[in-house]
Amino acid sequence: MHDIVRKVVSGRLEDMFEADALASDLSGRAMHHLVSELFPICRSITGDGVRQTLRKVQEHIPLTTCEVPSGLKVFDWTVPPEWNIRDAYIKNSAGERIVDFRACNLHVVGYSVPVHVRLSLGELKKHLFSDPAHPDCVPYRTSYYAPTWGFCIAHDQLVALQEDEYEVCIDSILEPGHLTYGQLRLSGKSSDEVLISCHVCHPSLGNDNLSGIAVATALAQHLRNRDLRYSYRFLFIPGTIGSITWLALNQSSIGKIKHGMVLTCVGDAGAPTYKRSRRSNAEIDRAWIYTLQQSGSPFTVLPFSPFGYDERQYCSPGIDLPVGCFMRTPHGQFPEYHTSADNVAFVKPAALRDTLERAIATIDVIENNASYINQKPMCEPKLGDYGLYGGIGGKSAGDYQMALLWLLNMSDGDASLLDIAERSNLSWDLLTKAAEALTSAGLLKRVEDVSGK
Amino acid sequence: MHDIVRKVVSGRLEDMFEADALASDLSGRAMHHLVSELFPICRSITGDGVRQTLRKVQEHIPLTTCEVPSGLKVFDWTVPPEWNIRDAYIKNSAGERIVDFRACNLHVVGYSVPVHVRLSLGELKKHLFSDPAHPDCVPYRTSYYAPTWGFCIAHDQLVALQEDEYEVCIDSILEPGHLTYGQLRLSGKSSDEVLISCHVCHPSLGNDNLSGIAVATALAQHLRNRDLRYSYRFLFIPGTIGSITWLALNQSSIGKIKHGMVLTCVGDAGAPTYKRSRRSNAEIDRAWIYTLQQSGSPFTVLPFSPFGYDERQYCSPGIDLPVGCFMRTPHGQFPEYHTSADNVAFVKPAALRDTLERAIATIDVIENNASYINQKPMCEPKLGDYGLYGGIGGKSAGDYQMALLWLLNMSDGDASLLDIAERSNLSWDLLTKAAEALTSAGLLKRVEDVSGK
Amino acid sequence: MHDIVRKVVSGRLEDMFEADALASDLSGRAMHHLVSELFPICRSITGDGVRQTLRKVQEHIPLTTCEVPSGLKVFDWTVPPEWNIRDAYIKNSAGERIVDFRACNLHVVGYSVPVHVRLSLGELKKHLFSDPAHPDCVPYRTSYYAPTWGFCIAHDQLVALQEDEYEVCIDSILEPGHLTYGQLRLSGKSSDEVLISCHVCHPSLGNDNLSGIAVATALAQHLRNRDLRYSYRFLFIPGTIGSITWLALNQSSIGKIKHGMVLTCVGDAGAPTYKRSRRSNAEIDRAWIYTLQQSGSPFTVLPFSPFGYDERQYCSPGIDLPVGCFMRTPHGQFPEYHTSADNVAFVKPAALRDTLERAIATIDVIENNASYINQKPMCEPKLGDYGLYGGIGGKSAGDYQMALLWLLNMSDGDASLLDIAERSNLSWDLLTKAAEALTSAGLLKRVEDVSGK
Repeated sequence: MHDIVRKVVSGRLEDMFEADALASDLSGRAMHHLVSELFPICRSITGDGVRQTLRKVQEHIPLTTCEVPSGLKVFDWTVPPEWNIRDAYIKNSAGERIVDFRACNLHVVGYSVPVHVRLSLGELKKHLFSDPAHPDCVPYRTSYYAPTWGFCIAHDQLVALQEDEYEVCIDSILEPGHLTYGQLRLSGKSSDEVLISCHVCHPSLGNDNLSGIAVATALAQHLRNRDLRYSYRFLFIPGTIGSITWLALNQSSIGKIKHGMVLTCVGDAGAPTYKRSRRSNAEIDRAWIYTLQQSGSPFTVLPFSPFGYDERQYCSPGIDLPVGCFMRTPHGQFPEYHTSADNVAFVKPAALRDTLERAIATIDVIENNASYINQKPMCEPKLGDYGLYGGIGGKSAGDYQMALLWLLNMSDGDASLLDIAERSNLSWDLLTKAAEALTSAGLLKRVEDVSGK
Repeated sequence: MHDIVRKVVSGRLEDMFEADALASDLSGRAMHHLVSELFPICRSITGDGVRQTLRKVQEHIPLTTCEVPSGLKVFDWTVPPEWNIRDAYIKNSAGERIVDFRACNLHVVGYSVPVHVRLSLGELKKHLFSDPAHPDCVPYRTSYYAPTWGFCIAHDQLVALQEDEYEVCIDSILEPGHLTYGQLRLSGKSSDEVLISCHVCHPSLGNDNLSGIAVATALAQHLRNRDLRYSYRFLFIPGTIGSITWLALNQSSIGKIKHGMVLTCVGDAGAPTYKRSRRSNAEIDRAWIYTLQQSGSPFTVLPFSPFGYDERQYCSPGIDLPVGCFMRTPHGQFPEYHTSADNVAFVKPAALRDTLERAIATIDVIENNASYINQKPMCEPKLGDYGLYGGIGGKSAGDYQMALLWLLNMSDGDASLLDIAERSNLSWDLLTKAAEALTSAGLLKRVEDVSGK
Repeated sequence: MHDIVRKVVSGRLEDMFEADALASDLSGRAMHHLVSELFPICRSITGDGVRQTLRKVQEHIPLTTCEVPSGLKVFDWTVPPEWNIRDAYIKNSAGERIVDFRACNLHVVGYSVPVHVRLSLGELKKHLFSDPAHPDCVPYRTSYYAPTWGFCIAHDQLVALQEDEYEVCIDSILEPGHLTYGQLRLSGKSSDEVLISCHVCHPSLGNDNLSGIAVATALAQHLRNRDLRYSYRFLFIPGTIGSITWLALNQSSIGKIKHGMVLTCVGDAGAPTYKRSRRSNAEIDRAWIYTLQQSGSPFTVLPFSPFGYDERQYCSPGIDLPVGCFMRTPHGQFPEYHTSADNVAFVKPAALRDTLERAIATIDVIENNASYINQKPMCEPKLGDYGLYGGIGGKSAGDYQMALLWLLNMSDGDASLLDIAERSNLSWDLLTKAAEALTSAGLLKRVEDVSGK
């Protein structure tokens, strides 16, 4: 059996990523396979769904999991009781499950307290949520901090409900336990860190949740066996309370984070969107935007705003980390958002792959960005003598020659490769190759090599 | 009789403004009524016309009037002799008044010296001014500092004049007297001042002169009984020489003026125009522009230029106050400008009212602008615990929730409400309400409350 | 005979420039005449062609020539051996010169080593260069630093070549000698210098080489008998190695250069192009751009890039002079570039003249730029008292009045005339006249007059 086919058939993501070197569309499929495996699990901000999810990810990367006890004070918040659910349903008087948690875990409002009662339609409706704008979809609702219970159903079903006596059952447990999150730290030469954060708290939702988990997993695999400049910290955390908990428990080391990104809604067919960090023009912002510009395909850059995903916490004024957010179609801007239509099919292998490639390209910028000092700053050096120039004078300089000239002209020890890339609009690959050639020729020196930093 | 009707019928501006609370289009009518009352008065940069005008305004607000003697040196200028005029005419040989000051005071060139002679048409024409571009209008001309006399007439009339012996009479008095201006200071908590300036030196011209007087009067009435942060100084002054005189006499207290605006040509039907102060981006400039943007209707922002109204003096390099100029159609850009067509009908009640509302909105920004410090800057505070957040997670944050989040995120003690307003594009009302709620909840503190300023 | 005609007929450029005062299109013709005289000379980066060129220029301006010996180390470069050529040809077996240096000096690759051999077509072709994109033109190629030989021919001729035994001869001499350049320094009041640089190293190419020489010559003539604020240094140098040599030999005085421009490709029919200096917004950059904007005709401003002409050296990071580059169509962007089609006819008298006028206008800005201090900064001075204002108030201020007002308003000793020109969008002529009038009236003082600088 052909090697690629065998690896794909094996279903092991790691094999599939390896196969990737052989067939370039496979990593998208591998990530999509992970999405489909994680989809049925009922996740919330605490509970066994998160634990199952992290165990699945651990099949691919060596995540550490942390269990933080309910009741712990984390900044202005408290780690909530742990929520687990075994079953839930609404039965009509004929004993038929007309709403069944086992069919779709979105049916239960997240963090619903246990209940087992018989109700008239009127009483029941006070606990039913639907979305008239998307009448055939089950919406996603939660009530983490206000104890209540409820069901989410398609609006079409809601309006068709008959007067009856309904049996309502939510077999959930809400009691002191733990908040669970996963992290992976890849050590680089420097203890300075790049933060990659995704959320793991949504139940059966594909793009809003699982796409980020899949790309973060693949990105960790990609970086794992590489020689890294920075250390990388991957966080797989429940949204909001997870990042708040992590930040509260790691205050002393937050300063190590020099760059970061939240990955969310990264698997739909829309064009890429990058939302700037609170600092607006941090190196990570510039690296993402440069990478998107170089791609030549359409993209959107959003200014920072204090609404969204965990960048809200990373960019709160007392934390203020340089953490942006990469998305494809932003949350709330695709109709499937927070409904049962955000399913496995809504997530596209090609989109996951495209996201992964752009994240890798951006990290490549961060990893290799540096300032150089031109060692022959008085006029241009005679590049021909260093084997860096064609002999017969031609009509126009090629891009590589332009990269050499830009690097020599701007390398005053202050301007970085990224500054030069933005100004010259040349590709990162070309600039790093040219910088390497000029360094080998003794014409450039990296600033840290000069100053001993 | 219905209360509103009675008050309107009474003709007292103050009553009409009170009625305003009941019927929203009345303040425009009240201001327009004041314009029509002031219209017939023959104003100039000095003289009884200014005094009559200020007395009329005093029926509505407690203006103080100042009399500055002719001959006083004010910076590079000298307060001119006082000019008054009783009558003026040109009679043909049949003894008919073919040009009559009593019919239209624009007929006499302002500051004309007295004259009573008989002249041929040829001699007379040397003293006649008309505007061929607007042949049926009487143009407005003055000669304050070069002693001469003249008449302004419609070009149509000029060309129809027959050879004849004409009797020319200007019964004016030009002799040492006073320059008169009015001012009103409303005391606020701070001795720092906001300057509101309008000119009172044009004869029967509606938009260019009376509209500014009417809006400034109404604005003073609006602010009068309010609890103010700043003190407000209203100046009703002759253009150029008036502001120069006031500045020369008040040099020691000019530094108290923190914000200011000139109101001129504020009653025509055109869209609003704001001309920036010399500082270009002073708080008053930003407040006006934010207010105009929030209105959602078209407007124009002009850069500062050293031509225009009294902002020329307030923004001279040695004075350099943060004083902008609000207009509707700028002077010289409407054909009625400085002609008899700039009459009472050219001034629209709705335009006066719109100007007043925008000025009040801008002052509301200045009054309430402040910096806050987030008291829980590490991650977001748990807003639900403060009664500031809905329990069931929805699809998108409402504007009020966004206001809360923006305030918390940006309130580092440096960014002001206006900074946050500009960045978030949220309404001032929403932001100030949200700031109040967050302050009550102990989540924000105003900077002055923190530092004791 | 009419004076103009006589002078033009005399053919002396100086006469023609003098005649210029009488007939405004003549200086263009005079410069074009110089282009046509210089065209046949075979120039390279060294050799007698450069010497002949400079001698021709010396007929018009008192250039000093410098001879720098081969082998001298100049920064990272070495002054190359001197190259001269007497003849070169390719003969077919019938003894006919099918390629003849005497017909077109572009036929020989610049710096070809001497050769005299018989070759088959196959062997010969290894040394033939053509440009398939312009099949009827002879391209221009050089090989200054890689010893080789070659011929450039039209592609049409190349493909028509028959199998034959060819006699190839290049009668060149490549041996230690000198690099020659010309310079002219015009002394102004200040020892601070303005650098004007053009290259003299291209053989029979009109726009790329000779146009710059002609305009620089005419500009020097224009400035020569004038009372100058700055000193002016004109360099007529071989490209790259010439500027490197000059900079290396004059390191100690480089700091005297306060402004500079490279003139190249300034004679084609295209619209003007200005390329900014490395500093991006130096006074020379702003002066050129203001001048181009004031012209009212289309133009292009390019950002700095490290490719082009000798600005590459002047703007290398260790030199970093404020030197921009003025062109019409930039090199490489007109199809005639570096081919035999860049001939005398491609250079247009009107384009040369337009370039000269714009350069003179730009220099006028640099020469007269200064900061002033308003001596009556408190409100506006009463301009009428200084004879600077009309008596009867009119509808709108004329441009001259606006110039007066802008100068008074912005002259705080910091803003320069150029700052005021950019902000007011008024003409330089008007602003300098108004500044003079205000200075005469005692209302402005030049900063250097105040501070004794």
